[in-house]
Amino acid sequence: MQTTTLSANRWPGLIERYRAFLPVTAETPVITLMEGNTPLVPAPAVERLIGRGVKVFVKTEGANPTGSFKDRGMTMAITKAVEAGSEAVICASTGNTSASMAAYAGRAGLRSYLVFPHGYVAAGKLAQALAHGSNLLPISGNFDAALAIVREISATLPITLVNSVNPFRLEGQKTAGFEVCDQLGGPPDILAIPVGNAGNISAYWKGFSEYKAKGFVDRTPQMWGFQADGAAPIVRGEPVENPQTIATAIRIGKPTSWHLATAALAESQGRIEAVTDGEILEAYKLLAREVGVVGDPASPASVAGITKFAAFIPDGSTIVCVTTGHGLKDPDTAVKTSGVGELTPVAADLDAVKRALGLN
Amino acid sequence: MQTTTLSANRWPGLIERYRAFLPVTAETPVITLMEGNTPLVPAPAVERLIGRGVKVFVKTEGANPTGSFKDRGMTMAITKAVEAGSEAVICASTGNTSASMAAYAGRAGLRSYLVFPHGYVAAGKLAQALAHGSNLLPISGNFDAALAIVREISATLPITLVNSVNPFRLEGQKTAGFEVCDQLGGPPDILAIPVGNAGNISAYWKGFSEYKAKGFVDRTPQMWGFQADGAAPIVRGEPVENPQTIATAIRIGKPTSWHLATAALAESQGRIEAVTDGEILEAYKLLAREVGVVGDPASPASVAGITKFAAFIPDGSTIVCVTTGHGLKDPDTAVKTSGVGELTPVAADLDAVKRALGLN
Repeated sequence: MQTTTLSANRWPGLIERYRAFLPVTAETPVITLMEGNTPLVPAPAVERLIGRGVKVFVKTEGANPTGSFKDRGMTMAITKAVEAGSEAVICASTGNTSASMAAYAGRAGLRSYLVFPHGYVAAGKLAQALAHGSNLLPISGNFDAALAIVREISATLPITLVNSVNPFRLEGQKTAGFEVCDQLGGPPDILAIPVGNAGNISAYWKGFSEYKAKGFVDRTPQMWGFQADGAAPIVRGEPVENPQTIATAIRIGKPTSWHLATAALAESQGRIEAVTDGEILEAYKLLAREVGVVGDPASPASVAGITKFAAFIPDGSTIVCVTTGHGLKDPDTAVKTSGVGELTPVAADLDAVKRALGLN
Repeated sequence: MQTTTLSANRWPGLIERYRAFLPVTAETPVITLMEGNTPLVPAPAVERLIGRGVKVFVKTEGANPTGSFKDRGMTMAITKAVEAGSEAVICASTGNTSASMAAYAGRAGLRSYLVFPHGYVAAGKLAQALAHGSNLLPISGNFDAALAIVREISATLPITLVNSVNPFRLEGQKTAGFEVCDQLGGPPDILAIPVGNAGNISAYWKGFSEYKAKGFVDRTPQMWGFQADGAAPIVRGEPVENPQTIATAIRIGKPTSWHLATAALAESQGRIEAVTDGEILEAYKLLAREVGVVGDPASPASVAGITKFAAFIPDGSTIVCVTTGHGLKDPDTAVKTSGVGELTPVAADLDAVKRALGLN
């Protein structure tokens, strides 16, 4: 079978695309699902709320293969695990990390193990890990207990830990900063992002800083991080014992990358602020109904933040708001925010349908 | 705020990318969520099953903004509705079409109406349409009754019908054929695809044929379509009264684009064959566990088909298998195919966890 010579322009996945910035060599066996290259969607509906010539884009990280930004770090973590000769990986997770680990481990031919707090995780949240063939084990303990156990297992057995303490995760995630600059034709003035464990804001900052250091851009954006009001340890300056928010992906009282986030905020002259669950849900509806993007419930925190703190945005700024997960990760919130209750059927009759839809 | 001059390389959405092949002008108000440009993922695990130097790629259409290939047609249908001055759109749908209509209509500022058979559609399937602010109405009747009513409404009121009878849908969908050639550096030898309503196989064929006619490629692939055994009207040569399959997206007894599909099969010297639900589920597991891709239950029909009919694949062929929807569209199937039942928690204790995971 002869191959034609039309030039190939397939996106090769983020490791190949940003190879020069990552800890890989020509011999590294890259494990990729073509993650990255996620859409940067203009958001005129948000721009109208802010006015003053401010431009707003949404970086929809839910478009990654398993539906969240976690795939960026996982392609690196699994690639390096394979390169090191590992035959298995493990993590403690209640959601996106487990789905991503399971997919990449399956592709790489590695066994994967997932330990999580029993009763805390809905079955739907584990559907992807199950489909990808991960070994799941609930424990009678909280997330910290699960993390302590998987750390101990990876320290004593030839099983690689892929939680965010794995340093390659941050390396992969930083490529999102490169991508924003490449897609926009330069850095934004402000990068707005939900903050939970604080790894993502730290990774973007690392990406922007490295791009500037290597001369690809001539400046870096301000980092604006937004925490949920009931789970805002960095805003308050102290850990939150019992964090509460509908935005489960950022319901974290003691962020792992707290010090990295603090450095990013200081170096970029950025802001860290809190948004309420009500403000998050308003932004969720705005994004879904007028921009056309449904994220998981943590995602709209970035948009909620820039509209709440719009007074601090200089005229004519360009802002990129990161949404971190796919709306299909949490259909329940989608249904609830619609405010639509039980739907009552009408007769299969033209007039009845027109009447019910208010089209008479 | 000054903008730097790093060259912008953002994917502009499929209408901008393939403008020369589409019915748009410089004045057309393009409504896009940056759909298209979906990954083409190598599938070595499938290649190993077939052998003989055959190369297999998976085109993961679930990576589109609302999680299915329908976004390709919808960006065109909504764009043309706006251009024509329409203020509302309507469709009959039980799934992917409704999600896509709702998202693009919301972005365009159009009202959208969804009519569907009561009791037939699970709430989760409507979560996206609800989130995007569509007006939903169940009727006491089947899908055909719903379609007849929305056709009548669009014929008598200024409301645009966006079901697949809308001719712009096919125009948008054909770009998937262009993309496969661009990403691969030429046409594949075989394009394998699930067949339900038969619009998608027809659209790919239109795309490949136009690319050849304009000299972008020098040949076209064979089209290999696969129907579910219990819903295989084209294979059997007659409508199926009561189609049955777990692959709900292709559970169709009388395909709308039957004649177009028949022409595509004949012109391309292709094949149309049936695969059983058991074969689809085996392919689902292979894709999820060894390739790293979870599709909706219809998606694996393409992979099930090429492994079942591998004897007809010439040595060294390049095959692209289309997966049509995101696995998150149907978490229940993901959980069921895993074969994992109720998970019993163990104590939060290192030895207990190691024992339970078989790591002793």
